[in-house]
Amino acid sequence: MNIVIIGGGGFLGQKLARALVARGTLNGTAISRITLADVNDPAGIEGASLPVETARCDITDPASVARVVTGETDVIYHLAAVVSAHAEEEFEDGMQINLFGTLNILERCRKLGTAPLMVFTSSIAVYGGEVPDPITETSLLNPQTSYGAQKAAGELLVNDYSRKGYVDGRGVRLPTISIRPGKPNRAASSFMSSILREPLNGQAANCPVGEDFLHYYLSPRKCVENLIRTAEIPAADLGRNRILQMPGRTLSIRQMIDAMSAVAGPEPARLITWQPDEAISSIVAGWRFDIHADRALALGLAADASFEENVRYYIEDDRPGN
Amino acid sequence: MNIVIIGGGGFLGQKLARALVARGTLNGTAISRITLADVNDPAGIEGASLPVETARCDITDPASVARVVTGETDVIYHLAAVVSAHAEEEFEDGMQINLFGTLNILERCRKLGTAPLMVFTSSIAVYGGEVPDPITETSLLNPQTSYGAQKAAGELLVNDYSRKGYVDGRGVRLPTISIRPGKPNRAASSFMSSILREPLNGQAANCPVGEDFLHYYLSPRKCVENLIRTAEIPAADLGRNRILQMPGRTLSIRQMIDAMSAVAGPEPARLITWQPDEAISSIVAGWRFDIHADRALALGLAADASFEENVRYYIEDDRPGN
Repeated sequence: MNIVIIGGGGFLGQKLARALVARGTLNGTAISRITLADVNDPAGIEGASLPVETARCDITDPASVARVVTGETDVIYHLAAVVSAHAEEEFEDGMQINLFGTLNILERCRKLGTAPLMVFTSSIAVYGGEVPDPITETSLLNPQTSYGAQKAAGELLVNDYSRKGYVDGRGVRLPTISIRPGKPNRAASSFMSSILREPLNGQAANCPVGEDFLHYYLSPRKCVENLIRTAEIPAADLGRNRILQMPGRTLSIRQMIDAMSAVAGPEPARLITWQPDEAISSIVAGWRFDIHADRALALGLAADASFEENVRYYIEDDRPGN
Repeated sequence: MNIVIIGGGGFLGQKLARALVARGTLNGTAISRITLADVNDPAGIEGASLPVETARCDITDPASVARVVTGETDVIYHLAAVVSAHAEEEFEDGMQINLFGTLNILERCRKLGTAPLMVFTSSIAVYGGEVPDPITETSLLNPQTSYGAQKAAGELLVNDYSRKGYVDGRGVRLPTISIRPGKPNRAASSFMSSILREPLNGQAANCPVGEDFLHYYLSPRKCVENLIRTAEIPAADLGRNRILQMPGRTLSIRQMIDAMSAVAGPEPARLITWQPDEAISSIVAGWRFDIHADRALALGLAADASFEENVRYYIEDDRPGN
């Protein structure tokens, strides 16, 4: 089984590749090759027990997509995207990469005629506007960012290309991933990882919202497990909507910090400062958090058992020096 | 006020143009010019009291769009599409015209920077799958045809281009239009007009489904009135979802025929034959009919008062010889 991970240079793509290498199989079949493709040369997987190749791929260019998605490709993970703030500031980049990039992959599959399995990562950014709580799997998608609109359009295309038999597509709407490894970035959600990650690393971090702020989270480790499970769901079980809400947990900032203290003691929480940031608050206040994922849960996807687990995963998997 | 009707050669575009000419104003402003644009040369409006031009426009070609949508365009009606059966049989045509055609119009507006008002016609084909009844304005769009998927993606783009201020977009999901003038076509819904239209014209017609079959209908006359009203809704009243379900009425075939008999006497109904057609039945059985349009009703759009009205409209507006 040949697997291509587009967006394979990102932290999720890298974690997914390592998890697939560790398993050695997908859907009961031995993995013969993993190709990590990204717009910049992705890192490889050191000491992998099966062939892991790296390739440059610009998904805005159909010829570049054709070089990594071939007649031998059995499974495609499409994780590549420009994120929310980028797509909002650079409208054309977002359209080219998030919408046309997805279309280029789907069109490549259609022209190949091999109907590969494809896992598409969407986002809870597809929700918004005046749609009532709770958000369920039959709620209107009413995105309030270009990123969310492009992801929602991608979902429709993945469903239609699947219905036509051009691809065996599945999509999952990712919760906000926390605790995300690495450094803070310019995303409005960046603090949702950094207020835990930096203190766990012995560094200060600022929380720009109040401790009652609620949002919908999942750990990187569970996200990767869910991405693997998504590829293993029998197509017939997906019914007439191949897009699932990936399960997460709705938590307040206070609950996340208390979980950190329960696992790592009281010291890290003392490194958090509480300077309000109106710009960030006004963006994240519109985000939806009362999200239900019953269908995905029934199909074997899972949320973290608790945020304490999530803190432990960060310490085990990602904390520098571990 | 300069108005461009793309898809202006179709029966709705022609009726809309005549209605706009008869009014002379839109949103309180005098109409200075109407341009009917279509892929084939559209018919003009004879004896119009204001300038009505015709133009060829292939919406799959950005340069062709740029020739009809200019810096002087105040209002765009985008009615052009390849319909359901065509988009299902010719996948590339559907993508090019329904998805990329809509994108080309939106991109033209973005590049102009003049934020014209744009009315986009979507369809109840965006509904489908395992979404529970009733269908409301916050139900998931889960189309089961390529036409529906392309229209749903167009809705997302109209909303996002509007949110960004590139266009003052509005969309309306049209019910099945009946009694549609003209000849039967290859659409699976064709009989929903022909079983009334042909008998009212003194000709036989076959009904391929049972008399209990339910669907969601609107007359051409009310559809045109609603298209005009849609352009006149203050943008602020549309909130964060600029797409409305255009109101219709849910009726059985029996109710439609009884309405015809109430208006036109018992003779036309005797011209209907009842040969079941499994192919047509299996397609239309998946269509949704329990559709609510509360938001559009509150914003001044309307359904037909009764199907008797609808029969009268056909006789007054469209029956040959009237």
